Amino acid sequence: MFVTTVMVRVVPDRVEDFIKATLVNHRASVEEPGNIRFDVLQNEQEPTRFLLYEAYRSEKDASAHKNTSHYRLWRDTVAVWMAEPRKGITYKGLNR
Amino acid sequence: MFVTTVMVRVVPDRVEDFIKATLVNHRASVEEPGNIRFDVLQNEQEPTRFLLYEAYRSEKDASAHKNTSHYRLWRDTVAVWMAEPRKGITYKGLNR
Repeated sequence: MFVTTVMVRVVPDRVEDFIKATLVNHRASVEEPGNIRFDVLQNEQEPTRFLLYEAYRSEKDASAHKNTSHYRLWRDTVAVWMAEPRKGITYKGLNR
Repeated sequence: MFVTTVMVRVVPDRVEDFIKATLVNHRASVEEPGNIRFDVLQNEQEPTRFLLYEAYRSEKDASAHKNTSHYRLWRDTVAVWMAEPRKGITYKGLNR
């Protein structure tokens, strides 16, 4: 399993827009053949901070996500709503 | 869904011990009634860094995890292997 976590901080007056656009991306992403999970998470202490938890069977499957039209639409839509550049970290899943 | 991410940095010569002990915790945790996922992830760029992704149906289910014998054994076992205090962040899951 190959996991990317993406940390995002959104400007306060765009939080609801960000949630809507990201749930659209979620619904399409979980239909990708290599996807295991695509969780959209809101920080409990700081509600302008989000974590996307993108788990794929392989690194190749995760790369394919970046070529989908739903990913590109999400990326271009939310870019101007971010309070700082988003930060991704990649992980190797050790369980199973 | 209620998610806790736990960031851990392990001293280099205890990485293998940490993985073993954490996979034992993983196997028992996924059997808890409220558990959705309990992923053990190793940072690809910095292999001494780990992320535990602990997803539960509710905050109550996540709290119950801290009262299990497998959690307590893990916590006490790995404590001396950490290069810095571990850091937990809690999130509200927005999808499904």
